[in-house]
Amino acid sequence: MASSSFNVVSLIRKKRDGNSLTESEIEQLIDAYTKDLIPDYQMSAFLMAAFLNGMNAGETAALTNSMLNSGIVVDLSHIDGIKVDKHSTGGVGDKTSLILAPIVAACGVPVPMISGRGLGHSGGTLDKLQSIPGFRVDMKLSRYKEIIEKHNLVLAGQTEEIAPADKRLYALRDVTATVEAIPLIASSIMSKKLAEGIDALVLDIKFGSGAFMKDQNDAIRLAETLVQIGEQFGKQTVGWLTSMEQPLGNAVGNWLEVKESIECLRGGGAEDLLEVTHLLAGTMIWLGGKAGTAEEGTELSRQAISNGTAFQKWLDIVEEQGGDSSVILNPETYPDAKFIENITSGQDGYVSGIDTYSIGMAALELGAGRKTKEETTDPQAGLLIHRKTGDYLKKGETIVTLYTNKKEEIPEITENIRQAYTLTESSPDPIDVITHRVDKEGVHEYRPKSL
Amino acid sequence: MASSSFNVVSLIRKKRDGNSLTESEIEQLIDAYTKDLIPDYQMSAFLMAAFLNGMNAGETAALTNSMLNSGIVVDLSHIDGIKVDKHSTGGVGDKTSLILAPIVAACGVPVPMISGRGLGHSGGTLDKLQSIPGFRVDMKLSRYKEIIEKHNLVLAGQTEEIAPADKRLYALRDVTATVEAIPLIASSIMSKKLAEGIDALVLDIKFGSGAFMKDQNDAIRLAETLVQIGEQFGKQTVGWLTSMEQPLGNAVGNWLEVKESIECLRGGGAEDLLEVTHLLAGTMIWLGGKAGTAEEGTELSRQAISNGTAFQKWLDIVEEQGGDSSVILNPETYPDAKFIENITSGQDGYVSGIDTYSIGMAALELGAGRKTKEETTDPQAGLLIHRKTGDYLKKGETIVTLYTNKKEEIPEITENIRQAYTLTESSPDPIDVITHRVDKEGVHEYRPKSL
Repeated sequence: MASSSFNVVSLIRKKRDGNSLTESEIEQLIDAYTKDLIPDYQMSAFLMAAFLNGMNAGETAALTNSMLNSGIVVDLSHIDGIKVDKHSTGGVGDKTSLILAPIVAACGVPVPMISGRGLGHSGGTLDKLQSIPGFRVDMKLSRYKEIIEKHNLVLAGQTEEIAPADKRLYALRDVTATVEAIPLIASSIMSKKLAEGIDALVLDIKFGSGAFMKDQNDAIRLAETLVQIGEQFGKQTVGWLTSMEQPLGNAVGNWLEVKESIECLRGGGAEDLLEVTHLLAGTMIWLGGKAGTAEEGTELSRQAISNGTAFQKWLDIVEEQGGDSSVILNPETYPDAKFIENITSGQDGYVSGIDTYSIGMAALELGAGRKTKEETTDPQAGLLIHRKTGDYLKKGETIVTLYTNKKEEIPEITENIRQAYTLTESSPDPIDVITHRVDKEGVHEYRPKSL
Repeated sequence: MASSSFNVVSLIRKKRDGNSLTESEIEQLIDAYTKDLIPDYQMSAFLMAAFLNGMNAGETAALTNSMLNSGIVVDLSHIDGIKVDKHSTGGVGDKTSLILAPIVAACGVPVPMISGRGLGHSGGTLDKLQSIPGFRVDMKLSRYKEIIEKHNLVLAGQTEEIAPADKRLYALRDVTATVEAIPLIASSIMSKKLAEGIDALVLDIKFGSGAFMKDQNDAIRLAETLVQIGEQFGKQTVGWLTSMEQPLGNAVGNWLEVKESIECLRGGGAEDLLEVTHLLAGTMIWLGGKAGTAEEGTELSRQAISNGTAFQKWLDIVEEQGGDSSVILNPETYPDAKFIENITSGQDGYVSGIDTYSIGMAALELGAGRKTKEETTDPQAGLLIHRKTGDYLKKGETIVTLYTNKKEEIPEITENIRQAYTLTESSPDPIDVITHRVDKEGVHEYRPKSL
């Protein structure tokens, strides 16, 4: 312990003084921490030094690698095809995974998807999936492989075996104000994604009031770092910058979002949600080798909905994973929350902005999210957003409908949601839903037609 | 704990983002840490953020105050006179405390001196005092007050009751690479000094190869911060920048330094040592109200040696604190180390530089210092330096004499000491022993005659 401890202090000092650690030094550090040879107080000093002085590409890759190799790395090489997953940095009303996973699988690209739970204002795919009665996300590795082999798709939850070093480091960062550093965020995301058994990855990096990265330039830097790590690990990686200046689609909350996904898979759905979903799906289909370009992939994605194969894939996977497909076929049979309340506008005007963080927090307070990791979520709770940026509102019109089983929360949340809407007399500029593409060639502004 | 913990993260974040904490936030933080309400891993993240982003004067004062008030603050207000102490940032061969304490007390200024042990290459006053047979530095507060009342002087060791928060923080800084930040160093020093019951303080801030601050500008910044804190606490504080580019005086090692102090108190001693000692003592005498200027104080300091009152004070305090005054009167009766070995020069040349850190480490290896807090020191071990910067050496002349009880260390240390000396053909520029004075008016270059 004495000599190991001496070493650690010199590594902390090196990072503190703005120098870069070697790959082997990073690996030693993470390895020793995972083995309990380094106390939390040394690791947190290191993390703060790394937060403030940054980490270069080599250090970030080494950190990713150490966390990745602290646990199981799934091997899906025996399964034919280029395995592709999508990761989103998290937002409000972001149910794209539920729609694109069956689309991409239906197009012949295997999708091994391991998702997390929501925390804070941001929803989690796992909570949404679990609002489907009977749907199981916990499984053994053999079952995980069996499902993807059979359906080109598996929707699983993170286990203790995936990147346990990241789990410990994340918990420490959470209580030491060292969360929001790009190299730390990027290595945490990638160590988990690289463990799934993927060959390629599509990233949805969100910015704006409902995202963890409020600032678009920070989001671009994060995207660049994520793509760089992916490519360093030999996985083709493409990132899209998408706006979280308003909720994506109309539903926020677990079952409400599953219901909106079903609408989309049946040919309906909100335009912004469909635009993002098809672009992400199209990129996955292209990376999966089933289309010549992302644009062509996007076209195939739309076809998978119109020809019904995506919805059929969705029914198959729900049944395979123990879910009740009758609520997928007949969503109106799903029991509603006890209290459903319309929030109306107090005045006339154009919606010129929506504080999306507040919308996410309102859904959380209604029961859809959790404040601590220990809390459970209410599948029925959430919001339906009827009016979005650019819409003209008349006084008394319904803006949002609340769904909750917590009556006492309604008055305050009603007030918070009204305040989240900014109304103006003149019409605002439209929101660009997708702004940039980031790949190994660099950062490209997105213009839909020249994709 | 939940709400307290939440609070802490926001304080860490504030410092991380380069903002200043309020006095009350700093006090809350240190108070909660001392009460074990904050884990080490949060404090170390805070310390690293403070290390890298700095702390302003208000924060540094608040930190000092919190650490000061975590323990006993001695009240000597019932004792007449302006109580003055001196603190040195540490060096090699620095025995000024042993000489100036009896001088200043003999001049009528009460000196409540609480000293620490040596660590690393730097010696500690406490280890030197304890080389005197029977000398006791541990005492109750009532005895501390009794001794100073009787003799205008007390020489005590730090106890657990003085600034315990500093003790804990220092231990944490030591293992998290957060030692060398000026606000943290300054608050640590001052929280201990302000607890002694002083009214004024003289600081000896050392720079150069044998000091903790190698760089003179860093030392000036530290001096400014220390003076600022002292003045904020209503204690007149004057700092002197002194060179540690070579050992101060000729002896390095516990008893050897006591012996050199006795020589000085009896009218002998090396010029550089006397220059620094009389200036520091003179400043103390002036701040203690017994001289109109520091220069006048310096004159009184020299007189206290020539008239024998300082040596008599030394004998009195040694006897009062249980020491054997016969070895003070007859230092030649003190038993020598088993092995005494002369190191000779391998070539001719001027001594143009001495790596003083290496000299300090050599003394440590011979037994005079300790590598860990648990080790004991050997009172007999050390070095006598016969040749210093500017001296001309002939091949075969003795440079240094080693005193040790560890024969096996001699060959390597001999080699290290030879390498610590740089010899050149031409004579080097003389070393300025004292370069700057720092007080509440600012930083002043030191020119002896215009003091």
